[in-house]
Amino acid sequence: MTALKTPVPLRKALVGIDPYGAPEIEGVVRLNVNENPFPPSPAMRAALAGAVTGALAEVNRYPDRDATALRADLAEYLGAGLTTDNIWAANGSNEVMTHLALAFGGPRRKMAALTPTYSVYPQYARDTMTAYVTAPRNPDYTVDADVLLRLWKDERPDILILTTPNNPTGTQTPLDVVAAAAEFPWLLVVDEAYQEFTESPADSAITLLPDHPNVVVSRTMSKAFALAGVRLGYLAGDPSIVDACKIVRLPYHLGVQTQALARAALANSQEPLQHVAQLREACQATQAWLASLGLTAPASQANFTLFGPFEDRHAIWQALLDRGVLVREVGPAGFLRVSMGTPAEMILFREALVDVLDTRQKRKATP
Amino acid sequence: MTALKTPVPLRKALVGIDPYGAPEIEGVVRLNVNENPFPPSPAMRAALAGAVTGALAEVNRYPDRDATALRADLAEYLGAGLTTDNIWAANGSNEVMTHLALAFGGPRRKMAALTPTYSVYPQYARDTMTAYVTAPRNPDYTVDADVLLRLWKDERPDILILTTPNNPTGTQTPLDVVAAAAEFPWLLVVDEAYQEFTESPADSAITLLPDHPNVVVSRTMSKAFALAGVRLGYLAGDPSIVDACKIVRLPYHLGVQTQALARAALANSQEPLQHVAQLREACQATQAWLASLGLTAPASQANFTLFGPFEDRHAIWQALLDRGVLVREVGPAGFLRVSMGTPAEMILFREALVDVLDTRQKRKATP
Repeated sequence: MTALKTPVPLRKALVGIDPYGAPEIEGVVRLNVNENPFPPSPAMRAALAGAVTGALAEVNRYPDRDATALRADLAEYLGAGLTTDNIWAANGSNEVMTHLALAFGGPRRKMAALTPTYSVYPQYARDTMTAYVTAPRNPDYTVDADVLLRLWKDERPDILILTTPNNPTGTQTPLDVVAAAAEFPWLLVVDEAYQEFTESPADSAITLLPDHPNVVVSRTMSKAFALAGVRLGYLAGDPSIVDACKIVRLPYHLGVQTQALARAALANSQEPLQHVAQLREACQATQAWLASLGLTAPASQANFTLFGPFEDRHAIWQALLDRGVLVREVGPAGFLRVSMGTPAEMILFREALVDVLDTRQKRKATP
Repeated sequence: MTALKTPVPLRKALVGIDPYGAPEIEGVVRLNVNENPFPPSPAMRAALAGAVTGALAEVNRYPDRDATALRADLAEYLGAGLTTDNIWAANGSNEVMTHLALAFGGPRRKMAALTPTYSVYPQYARDTMTAYVTAPRNPDYTVDADVLLRLWKDERPDILILTTPNNPTGTQTPLDVVAAAAEFPWLLVVDEAYQEFTESPADSAITLLPDHPNVVVSRTMSKAFALAGVRLGYLAGDPSIVDACKIVRLPYHLGVQTQALARAALANSQEPLQHVAQLREACQATQAWLASLGLTAPASQANFTLFGPFEDRHAIWQALLDRGVLVREVGPAGFLRVSMGTPAEMILFREALVDVLDTRQKRKATP
């Protein structure tokens, strides 16, 4: 951080803060930010490019401020009787969540999450002047009624973000527990970024929406749709919540090219979604393999898994990187997180990890 | 607005607020939101499409979080010795400004603007819990040292947004007055969204940057670059201000397709920029013509002009729309704003306005 030369100091809450930053390293196997490893096929790429080319015809004009056509497509993708009025979309779930925090959080309000969980949630709170409070998950990273009740009693939050499958632990919260969470008088934001990877994607909090206008389900096209580069997050919820987001969204927040790409990907969803089962199986296989090494890997329903514990996780992270494999140093003490790559990438990950563990074993054995 | 059913009420500051909304009407001559009327040529469109197609190869990966290549290109476009470290970019100037307000505004801080001015500024303040204060411009919508001194004495704002050319009045603030504004101990954000349309675009607040680390210049690709649909705003300022923006920007805020489109447009800037002189001349000609009708049109250096005053501006706005021409009901009481269209569109505007005024004249003459 360059020393500030303006007479106006940074807002206090930001002093000493580093920008969000998983290391961006090229030329290695990137298994660090839960990306989908499969780039679009030539056919998919042509469909995406064609859609953008069409949208460029009037790129001198502002985009549809309410992204109506895209929201209709998203409603159709989610099904469950949802319509355009139930859907909101923005530049990544980060922006969707910030819209919710701007509308329903703010000074003297509290946003809660159940830790360990996604590292960017505190930023939504910080940037909307909302207090960020947490309650710990159970030791196995699950959530149950007791966890919820404790949070409510201790903090009475206005907003709860409940993440299932949870990042970075991969653990899923059963739908009956999500339903129990919907009974509290908070805005329940169920972050289902990885829902498509679960055993039963239809067992979604979306089924709770008709009877629970205080529930919002957040989704993304970054993971199952393999479109992290496009930045398209969306939510499903009561139309009044969508209306609230419209008040706080910056005018014309979603470019024509982004709307066009997301629509084209939805129209061609069979391609990305066919990789989902493969990534799910890779995760199960990787977890079993990690266990066979004597490591712990909490049951994951996502496209990533924690593994550990290590006495010095940073040393393991660095040793893997030295062997060309980038994982993430995140989550509970001693653990690392690996995202599912292609079959070839997962072989490289396994080779690298075996080599790292062998090398350490030998070093220990040699006094 | 659908009635809210959540147990958590909207944040108080938002109750009763309508979303930002110039009417979006199809099938008319759209001269209402200061868009550039010239769509990209086939060659430009091919260049833009090619750039996106290239970027799609790795669209399953997150974008460059810091948009480094784009910021380098923007620095080169601005010249004046600026480098990547001086530039920040986001989804429209709206987001750039919000980053500044998040970093340097917030509770117990004040953002100021000189009215009448751009209608979205209060939203930047509202959404960052910053107080929004104003001082009036001179009666001819100019700004001078007295206006600045009065604002400082009355409000002592932390941030001043000084808009030149100003929207919706089109009036320019001379560089010596901008330089005087830079001497106050506030963060001076010079909004130069329309700078390329002025008589002398190089007379920019960018020339003040080397000696004034408290100055930030905001620019956009929506207007001169005819890319309103892409949503690309940027700023030039001290590297420490760019670093501050990095703390508050949402991770991966700028999609790969947006970065690619902006870079391609910069690489082919001769096409959009050649229309700038034409739009500038259209504005001067339109202002002279409006004056010849006995109307007032404050001296504009942008691609739009106010005109009026009308006893009932809404009736005039509606009568123009009835004749297929959409202008904007915005700015000082009694005035309307018209954006410069193509030559054909400006003929339609003139015909419609003459017809509207004639009709009203006849109606008055007939008791």
